[in-house]
Amino acid sequence: MMRILCKQAFGARALLTLCPLCAFLVPAVVDAQLITFSKQDLADYTAKQPFERFPDGRPKVPDALLERARDLSSEEIWSTLQEKGYNNQFADGFQILHPGKPLVGRAFTVQFMPLRKDVDQVAQQKAKERGLPRLMNQTAIDMLQPGDVLVVDILGKKVDGTIVGDNLFYYVMKATKGGGLVVDGSIRDLNGISEIDMPAYFKSTDPTPIGNVMLTGINVPIRIGNVTVMPGDMVVGDREGVYFIPPQFVKETLDRADEIRIHDEWTKKKFDEGKYKSSEIYSTPKDPKLREEYEEYLKRRLAELKKQRGEN
Amino acid sequence: MMRILCKQAFGARALLTLCPLCAFLVPAVVDAQLITFSKQDLADYTAKQPFERFPDGRPKVPDALLERARDLSSEEIWSTLQEKGYNNQFADGFQILHPGKPLVGRAFTVQFMPLRKDVDQVAQQKAKERGLPRLMNQTAIDMLQPGDVLVVDILGKKVDGTIVGDNLFYYVMKATKGGGLVVDGSIRDLNGISEIDMPAYFKSTDPTPIGNVMLTGINVPIRIGNVTVMPGDMVVGDREGVYFIPPQFVKETLDRADEIRIHDEWTKKKFDEGKYKSSEIYSTPKDPKLREEYEEYLKRRLAELKKQRGEN
Amino acid sequence: MMRILCKQAFGARALLTLCPLCAFLVPAVVDAQLITFSKQDLADYTAKQPFERFPDGRPKVPDALLERARDLSSEEIWSTLQEKGYNNQFADGFQILHPGKPLVGRAFTVQFMPLRKDVDQVAQQKAKERGLPRLMNQTAIDMLQPGDVLVVDILGKKVDGTIVGDNLFYYVMKATKGGGLVVDGSIRDLNGISEIDMPAYFKSTDPTPIGNVMLTGINVPIRIGNVTVMPGDMVVGDREGVYFIPPQFVKETLDRADEIRIHDEWTKKKFDEGKYKSSEIYSTPKDPKLREEYEEYLKRRLAELKKQRGEN
Amino acid sequence: MMRILCKQAFGARALLTLCPLCAFLVPAVVDAQLITFSKQDLADYTAKQPFERFPDGRPKVPDALLERARDLSSEEIWSTLQEKGYNNQFADGFQILHPGKPLVGRAFTVQFMPLRKDVDQVAQQKAKERGLPRLMNQTAIDMLQPGDVLVVDILGKKVDGTIVGDNLFYYVMKATKGGGLVVDGSIRDLNGISEIDMPAYFKSTDPTPIGNVMLTGINVPIRIGNVTVMPGDMVVGDREGVYFIPPQFVKETLDRADEIRIHDEWTKKKFDEGKYKSSEIYSTPKDPKLREEYEEYLKRRLAELKKQRGEN
Amino acid sequence: MMRILCKQAFGARALLTLCPLCAFLVPAVVDAQLITFSKQDLADYTAKQPFERFPDGRPKVPDALLERARDLSSEEIWSTLQEKGYNNQFADGFQILHPGKPLVGRAFTVQFMPLRKDVDQVAQQKAKERGLPRLMNQTAIDMLQPGDVLVVDILGKKVDGTIVGDNLFYYVMKATKGGGLVVDGSIRDLNGISEIDMPAYFKSTDPTPIGNVMLTGINVPIRIGNVTVMPGDMVVGDREGVYFIPPQFVKETLDRADEIRIHDEWTKKKFDEGKYKSSEIYSTPKDPKLREEYEEYLKRRLAELKKQRGEN
Amino acid sequence: MMRILCKQAFGARALLTLCPLCAFLVPAVVDAQLITFSKQDLADYTAKQPFERFPDGRPKVPDALLERARDLSSEEIWSTLQEKGYNNQFADGFQILHPGKPLVGRAFTVQFMPLRKDVDQVAQQKAKERGLPRLMNQTAIDMLQPGDVLVVDILGKKVDGTIVGDNLFYYVMKATKGGGLVVDGSIRDLNGISEIDMPAYFKSTDPTPIGNVMLTGINVPIRIGNVTVMPGDMVVGDREGVYFIPPQFVKETLDRADEIRIHDEWTKKKFDEGKYKSSEIYSTPKDPKLREEYEEYLKRRLAELKKQRGEN
Repeated sequence: MMRILCKQAFGARALLTLCPLCAFLVPAVVDAQLITFSKQDLADYTAKQPFERFPDGRPKVPDALLERARDLSSEEIWSTLQEKGYNNQFADGFQILHPGKPLVGRAFTVQFMPLRKDVDQVAQQKAKERGLPRLMNQTAIDMLQPGDVLVVDILGKKVDGTIVGDNLFYYVMKATKGGGLVVDGSIRDLNGISEIDMPAYFKSTDPTPIGNVMLTGINVPIRIGNVTVMPGDMVVGDREGVYFIPPQFVKETLDRADEIRIHDEWTKKKFDEGKYKSSEIYSTPKDPKLREEYEEYLKRRLAELKKQRGEN
Repeated sequence: MMRILCKQAFGARALLTLCPLCAFLVPAVVDAQLITFSKQDLADYTAKQPFERFPDGRPKVPDALLERARDLSSEEIWSTLQEKGYNNQFADGFQILHPGKPLVGRAFTVQFMPLRKDVDQVAQQKAKERGLPRLMNQTAIDMLQPGDVLVVDILGKKVDGTIVGDNLFYYVMKATKGGGLVVDGSIRDLNGISEIDMPAYFKSTDPTPIGNVMLTGINVPIRIGNVTVMPGDMVVGDREGVYFIPPQFVKETLDRADEIRIHDEWTKKKFDEGKYKSSEIYSTPKDPKLREEYEEYLKRRLAELKKQRGEN
Repeated sequence: MMRILCKQAFGARALLTLCPLCAFLVPAVVDAQLITFSKQDLADYTAKQPFERFPDGRPKVPDALLERARDLSSEEIWSTLQEKGYNNQFADGFQILHPGKPLVGRAFTVQFMPLRKDVDQVAQQKAKERGLPRLMNQTAIDMLQPGDVLVVDILGKKVDGTIVGDNLFYYVMKATKGGGLVVDGSIRDLNGISEIDMPAYFKSTDPTPIGNVMLTGINVPIRIGNVTVMPGDMVVGDREGVYFIPPQFVKETLDRADEIRIHDEWTKKKFDEGKYKSSEIYSTPKDPKLREEYEEYLKRRLAELKKQRGEN
Repeated sequence: MMRILCKQAFGARALLTLCPLCAFLVPAVVDAQLITFSKQDLADYTAKQPFERFPDGRPKVPDALLERARDLSSEEIWSTLQEKGYNNQFADGFQILHPGKPLVGRAFTVQFMPLRKDVDQVAQQKAKERGLPRLMNQTAIDMLQPGDVLVVDILGKKVDGTIVGDNLFYYVMKATKGGGLVVDGSIRDLNGISEIDMPAYFKSTDPTPIGNVMLTGINVPIRIGNVTVMPGDMVVGDREGVYFIPPQFVKETLDRADEIRIHDEWTKKKFDEGKYKSSEIYSTPKDPKLREEYEEYLKRRLAELKKQRGEN
Repeated sequence: MMRILCKQAFGARALLTLCPLCAFLVPAVVDAQLITFSKQDLADYTAKQPFERFPDGRPKVPDALLERARDLSSEEIWSTLQEKGYNNQFADGFQILHPGKPLVGRAFTVQFMPLRKDVDQVAQQKAKERGLPRLMNQTAIDMLQPGDVLVVDILGKKVDGTIVGDNLFYYVMKATKGGGLVVDGSIRDLNGISEIDMPAYFKSTDPTPIGNVMLTGINVPIRIGNVTVMPGDMVVGDREGVYFIPPQFVKETLDRADEIRIHDEWTKKKFDEGKYKSSEIYSTPKDPKLREEYEEYLKRRLAELKKQRGEN
Repeated sequence: MMRILCKQAFGARALLTLCPLCAFLVPAVVDAQLITFSKQDLADYTAKQPFERFPDGRPKVPDALLERARDLSSEEIWSTLQEKGYNNQFADGFQILHPGKPLVGRAFTVQFMPLRKDVDQVAQQKAKERGLPRLMNQTAIDMLQPGDVLVVDILGKKVDGTIVGDNLFYYVMKATKGGGLVVDGSIRDLNGISEIDMPAYFKSTDPTPIGNVMLTGINVPIRIGNVTVMPGDMVVGDREGVYFIPPQFVKETLDRADEIRIHDEWTKKKFDEGKYKSSEIYSTPKDPKLREEYEEYLKRRLAELKKQRGEN
């Protein structure tokens, strides 16, 4: 929908054209925000992540791992993170746009706070001084990269908390190559959005455009439900909710998930035989012979998987 | 379902046959209700509406405009009404029977209040004196016309607040030619109802029949959520909720929606080209050339639309 | 999913193999639970039920009646039970796994209470003395029979209240031949579970495994919402919620439902003719001739139904 | 607090001075409202009330009975109304300004609906034509009489739903001689209001002034929670909530309450003796001698009460 | 209040007089309930408790310890129970009758379930056969002993969930010598009850009498919030909520609380000196000299306390 | 209460003593936090504030103005801020410790986020490198100054969200000279805290100590409800909720409040005369003579006030 009344949300000033070299401007943007989190900060706080980084400093979980993650369910992730002592990486309570479609990508975080004119004026002035456009939702959206998931804390608002309508949702889909959206807030134009093929998790819908908020952070640490989300976290969503996986645990989570899935495969197969009580098989076979049978099955299937993936 | 225990809801008295000339009886019905709103009242309070009226005084938004309204989303409506200063015309929080199926029609309003025997007895006595049947949900339902949407304030009740089960829902569908139902209350027989092809918006479901309420108004002003609904309002529902559009704004809303839809069409097309940041295109193209391109596109598409509708 | 961290939920002790003669052990299990309800208790409190019983004492509503019950909607059940003065047999507020798929079966009840170590240790000790495995969710699940619906009071918990994940859900499906699950609590692995073809009603989902609870009763009277559920009740679920029908009313409910369904069939047929107001036909035809027409229709259709079922 | 920004709520027009003969104007006011309920309507729908009436047609429960009602608790009222089949006369869920202070008076009802400019303009125009001031909360407040309780349906709103601040609350106290306020909505200036000695029941507080609503009825039937309140009902509030007693039941309720209070007096006296189990005394003494003792006690105390009141 | 309409709740049958030797009848009562928990069960499941027992088998925490417990706050209890691994012994979310007045006593538990006529009839029949009165709330209340706290699971119900009104509340106060009431449900007659000097914790109030439930257990394990309450637990309530302390931890809890209280006394004294940052003193003094000072203070004050209690 | 189990919340490491020169360390602390907001940032974003600053950069609203602010009610503040277009400065929904006691002071802000070990470890390491103690609630509390109000965003948590118990609450009272506490989260030891004479606004209470969170900001911009709170804002709380007033509006708010209070004084006086309808006097007197009378009254009283304050 055309945001005809957007002046209500962001004032009536003219919007400047984004500089085509905007990737270089990221540090400047960071300085213009109320909440600053420099490239060095990001490097320091995500020092354990083992992958390359984006020019903006975000960890870049490789595409191949994102691809493998499409089969994850949140329970498979739970077991690895719990073991590591990371109990606060799951958020739910969302409406899910396409429940059958997995969400996988790298977190691109955005934070809003309640509008306060004195503070917003300073931030806008700082942005202007750096030749930047007005700070608003599109400022962040225009920085999205393929494989990103836009993760937004907009205060859980329904009215005035609509981060995108169908036009911007479409743009996000194009820019991220179908990455996805997680918003602790709302969206509008659900009719239009429901026809666009990108996963989305949102708290509510509303016909109002975004308003009465100010953009306070792009790629800063944000809170979604009971999770501290860091830029570059791997985001995985299923029918239950969304996991934010620190990059240093991605590989282990995926490997563990392989085992879990094979375990489940074998367990169901045994159940199909109809000869065993559930506790004889699950979670660990009681009979040593069965246990052995399982171990062999696991070994064989893991090998097959590797081969299938050409991992040798 | 057969309402076997309806005596619980409405007492054990015999139900009189509705006079075949009941259209003429509407004023009488109005006098028999607790809340009266005469044909003259309706004319006074909807004086700005530009269309014909039903014999009962309700504005009659033309069928052709209803037809065009099937493509509206609630956001498209929002922009026109907001501009006019009508901020209270949208209600949500409903369960939606067939989320993909648009709801469009003319509001036929019904109001219930908590049962209070002394008041109800007087109302029933007044109805009887005018040769009218017992005041109950069917009294209103039997007055429905093709294109109507039955809009009911039954106090948001779940238990005892079931305005229809599948039999009456089926009748409403037949009488309104698939118009629809919006109820701030509940329905029953969801299994049966879900097989009937008419849009419906309701707060909850319950196995109990309607009860412990009294019918207090037919085609009177009622409240649905934060909306004052007037008889004859154009009702439009999508995946988010329901709009009640005063008839005087119907034409303008539809025309504006055409523009918005063309604007969105063009915007997405430009996004598809992959050459622009979202803020370069949306909501208004920054580059004067692009703006010009858009203006021409809009003009051409509007003309096509008109032609298509044979409006030229 | 593999319950890798189940030691958190139930401690790290070894799980003993269930004795193959476990049907004989039911009384022993009953003694080992905190809440005891002996076979004699069950017989006393369900004395009015007219059918055979399982070895564990539960009433066994015949398969043929379960089959007929697949067409019931909760409203059809409501009318019979209300008439008998049973107002507390319906529970709703569940998420429904497969909304279009009817749930029908015999209640197998399980109760949990908040974990309290001193109490749980005694119960586990008593179980051990009787050669029983550790009391946990699988203890109950391993006793399920074809046609059972697993009905669980796990305190409405979300976190730690997940009675099954997809592995055990699959086992329940196999063991009950697709009977079903009703849990006042949560499930996990919704992605996996949604692919398994068994009806399920649950309050929420969560990635955590079951924990911080203790099993306190198997086939004891339990509470689900505002219902006292007895082992062996016929469980029927539709798009609205779940009914628990005392076995003594099963036959009458089904016969009444036949009449209701034929009544609805005829009513809709008359509405289709477009000649009548709803109140002329529904719920009772006003015109004696129509009433007669209906009575004949009812008689004929009932006869056809009986024939169809080979009941004649 | 000075309503400096009230133009936001009701527009910037000049407020006309209320005519000093306003009692005579009540019918005119009624005509100017959206929801009309004439003096004759009021007479018809409260035909069973046995007392005098106010000039505006409202039943006038005598002051002496109001005085006696100060000792009522809502449970005492419950028993009479339940017996009569009036199950919907109690509302709770309020914040109570002075929990220890009983609320007693005659209902003066006011109804608001969501603001809708086309409707409000017609109502204001009608008011103007009759030489009436702008319809707003003060229009109603200026009509209050000693002994009245202002009962307001303002849609349960918190923001913009503040029927009074401390200035108008003070005025209501003066005008009703401490009658009271019941509002399904909010109040503002709680600090100031808490120092004013009048009972009040409200849903919430908010710093905003009243706004985004329109006055649609004065002394019309309104809904408060699950109660249909009629103008002139006796309003009684205690620590639990508020009862609305139809005038025809006032005398019987008070007499019954006398008996209940004496019964309680005697019951506690017997409990004080420490010789009886509760069920031997309450609710009916089991021992015929005790029953006799009670009957005599009741007779004697009722006589004393009458004498005390000079009713003899 | 006189329960005039109690026939609605418990039927119209005559209530038999309770046998004066009812203490001997407890086992019989237990057999008549739906949920049975024999004296032996109680002994087994509370085997670790170190005190005498009541004739009904309940642990009897000595009066002297109850007396000391009057100074406990829930946080002092928390530290001991947490350390033992008892995380589920605290319930809150109650309305508190007299917030400043501590609740201390021994749990007398009562359980209700939703009324189901077939089950209730059997239970009542069993009671009758044993010469027992009708099973209802007074059946349990008449068994209360001095020092007891009546702890009731009545399903969290508001309407129909009122375990006592002011008459029975008064009786409970007399019978328990001011012990107290904790109900996961409601009470009625709040006006009258608020004048009675006994602590009470309840979820809500309502004018209806108890109804639509059946008594299913007296002194059986029950659930209150997330706590499994055992008969004889020490119940302690403060301004936050209620703790249920297993008797085996009572002594240790009280001793630990002494230390905590002395620690707090000393901490505040040091803060009063104004020379230290909070972290220098609390929770453990950083400076070894201060630590020593504290240790001595603790020793001295503990000795004083003992002396004061004549424990030496 | 002694935080015996605080290792659960913050790990078992030793706590270093705070350097006595800690005021100089503030910038260092800022660098050690996840969310940084330098002294320069603070100066930039509060550039319009007209008062002196604390060494840490916070605006220092003078004590004399704080003193005057003790008479403010939130409605008086509302009128000034609304006029300036600051609609998001009020938060409510708190439990209020001492409802009659006004809260006034300067905001000292603290922010927590959900614990995430990788992030917390880096922050703690950074703190250590700067010779700082472990980052935890006491780190912030030890920096409080007289006149401060501790304003904490701890995620609205109940369990584990207890910013202080009675020991630290007592310390805060001492350190701020009774300034106060506003926490979007919980407190523990309510019994002890309720005896301490300092205003406090909190969402809930819980017996658990703080845990499962990490300190992420001291004197950074935080969000409380729908307010962006800046360090140094004037905090004012009454019986309704809490206002956060940007320092640049403090003087004007207080002056306006004087007028409002005099206006109310005069209005009530006129109401006391009993000669006027409310709308004749309020909000603006209709009669020009009355208006004049009021203007003179206002002038005289303002002069008196000034004199009283020795401002002349």
